[in-house]
Amino acid sequence: MVEKTPPPSARKATTIKELAEHVGVHVSTVSRALNPETRNLIGPAVVNRVLAAADELGYVPNSMAAALRTGQSRTVGILIPDLMNPVFPPFIRGIQDTLDEAGYTAIIANSDGDKDYERDIVQKMKARFVAGLIMATPLYRGDPAVRECLDRHIPVVLINRAVDEGAISAVVNDDRAGIMAAVDHLARLGHRRIAHMAGPQATYTGMTRYQAFVAAMQAHVLPVDEDQIAFADGYTIPAGHQVMRALLRRGPAFTALIAANDQLALGALDGLSEAGLRVPRDVSLVGFNDMPLVDRIDPPLTTLRIQHYEMGAEAARILLEELTARKSQSRTVMLRPELVVRGSTGPARRARS
Amino acid sequence: MVEKTPPPSARKATTIKELAEHVGVHVSTVSRALNPETRNLIGPAVVNRVLAAADELGYVPNSMAAALRTGQSRTVGILIPDLMNPVFPPFIRGIQDTLDEAGYTAIIANSDGDKDYERDIVQKMKARFVAGLIMATPLYRGDPAVRECLDRHIPVVLINRAVDEGAISAVVNDDRAGIMAAVDHLARLGHRRIAHMAGPQATYTGMTRYQAFVAAMQAHVLPVDEDQIAFADGYTIPAGHQVMRALLRRGPAFTALIAANDQLALGALDGLSEAGLRVPRDVSLVGFNDMPLVDRIDPPLTTLRIQHYEMGAEAARILLEELTARKSQSRTVMLRPELVVRGSTGPARRARS
Repeated sequence: MVEKTPPPSARKATTIKELAEHVGVHVSTVSRALNPETRNLIGPAVVNRVLAAADELGYVPNSMAAALRTGQSRTVGILIPDLMNPVFPPFIRGIQDTLDEAGYTAIIANSDGDKDYERDIVQKMKARFVAGLIMATPLYRGDPAVRECLDRHIPVVLINRAVDEGAISAVVNDDRAGIMAAVDHLARLGHRRIAHMAGPQATYTGMTRYQAFVAAMQAHVLPVDEDQIAFADGYTIPAGHQVMRALLRRGPAFTALIAANDQLALGALDGLSEAGLRVPRDVSLVGFNDMPLVDRIDPPLTTLRIQHYEMGAEAARILLEELTARKSQSRTVMLRPELVVRGSTGPARRARS
Repeated sequence: MVEKTPPPSARKATTIKELAEHVGVHVSTVSRALNPETRNLIGPAVVNRVLAAADELGYVPNSMAAALRTGQSRTVGILIPDLMNPVFPPFIRGIQDTLDEAGYTAIIANSDGDKDYERDIVQKMKARFVAGLIMATPLYRGDPAVRECLDRHIPVVLINRAVDEGAISAVVNDDRAGIMAAVDHLARLGHRRIAHMAGPQATYTGMTRYQAFVAAMQAHVLPVDEDQIAFADGYTIPAGHQVMRALLRRGPAFTALIAANDQLALGALDGLSEAGLRVPRDVSLVGFNDMPLVDRIDPPLTTLRIQHYEMGAEAARILLEELTARKSQSRTVMLRPELVVRGSTGPARRARS
């Protein structure tokens, strides 16, 4: 710990009144001098003195008041449930690039999925004149943050989840097509007993991917054994590890596993390795998301690549339309994930046969 | 694309005046009814009618005005240069947990290292009554965002970088101790010709780690060959890949490489693999940061584990002290990274001898 020189004292912002006193003119003169549209009403010498003083004293125009008057804040809030999940930063990248082009700024909040915190954040952002919100937070029926947006008439676009209730635009993955591609791939490799590590069923992705798995297995006339389906209580590596242990305790009756996301797949890898099972020799493994670096792990993960960046960009485009053109129709855009085949999937029981 | 039902129209916020008209009482009565401290001055029946109407009309108290009056916004801004770099989310985790405990909220902005954008963000955050800032953005001499904070008297704490100029608290890594531990480790494995992939020299970490590398080599009486030092122009995987190619074109005169961060190390791995060189058989590789998943890549990366979470928590603690106790001394806290030895380092030229 190294002591350095003292910092500037935390001082209150300069007010227009202080500015007027400093220059020795009336408050209304300062106000006119600061506003480019009224500046011509007073002499240039006074304008220059006011501007110099504003600079010297660090006067910041009250942009909130301006935003309130014009109803234009040009700021959008982004709600993320878990910044530690590498799937979210690429969404933000896509959102931000699109907002930047339109002259909007993004401020991001990380909620950790805490529903009360999310409602508070929505209120705080609203109070700070955020023009609209993009929410990637998980949704439950009667979600308080969504309720808050509907009640407060805050334009909102959901990303990676949709709601039945209300009328909110959303950008989601075609989970059904994605899971179908994974089951097709495994079936072609000769797998018949395929397990599913499902995500939390209170979340949109957890539920739709689970339903998609059952539908895809049925379409292939493959057995859906409830013993081969286990539910994680979070989208984290430790949750995947724990669920893998539970699945293996029920007996090694499957030759392939589809995890509801890559974090769960990494946890599954830990659980399989702990049990002395090898991927893909003993069990083929498929993730969902293609989050950064899963192409570099051992073995490289076969997964469904979602269009992270495009999802973010599309969500921002929809929100901008709602903000500027006052679009009267909400919509749901569905983007198709692409199966990326890597080393974690192989022929069924190749090594054991 | 699925058409859904129409959204609520983007409506302006309810004002206290509209609330008064709706209830049929004077504005001052509404104001008293909404304020818990003055509520007892008016009858409970009126209070209840006002509160019910506020709820019904979606009235949001003007918290900015309140923040302006009290000088307390309980919001802290976090400036991140690149959310796509997995090293930053754990910082945010540490910052947020500490702020949460103190009842503060964090809003995050991602600058992509754009200096003008950073200055704009500081101004916008200031205008939104952000009480203070934590900046992880790279710094240059006369950095406009830092200048803006000093000029506007916004309390700020730097994370992962420090400045000589001004008096700003910072939480940094002991880069000197970290690089020394890496050189010690490689020297013990018999490496004498060690290369360095340096980060951008305009950044704090790029410069301190480069200087630390030269100092550590000299302390070990090992040759510092300028041909074996190359500078990346960004902390990204592609930048590392490009620099690795340049280093290899100068001749394979080294048996080990220390990269200034893990992203550069991953790029180095790509460049080495492209040239048919294997890690660690031909070249031992050390990164810096221990970012998520580098323990799972092939080969697992030897790196310097920085105390991400603790750095964030410490930065938040310092800022809270500056905000609440009006501390008059800035300080720099230096945390020691720990060498984590994994599969990417091995004996010098083991396979070739």
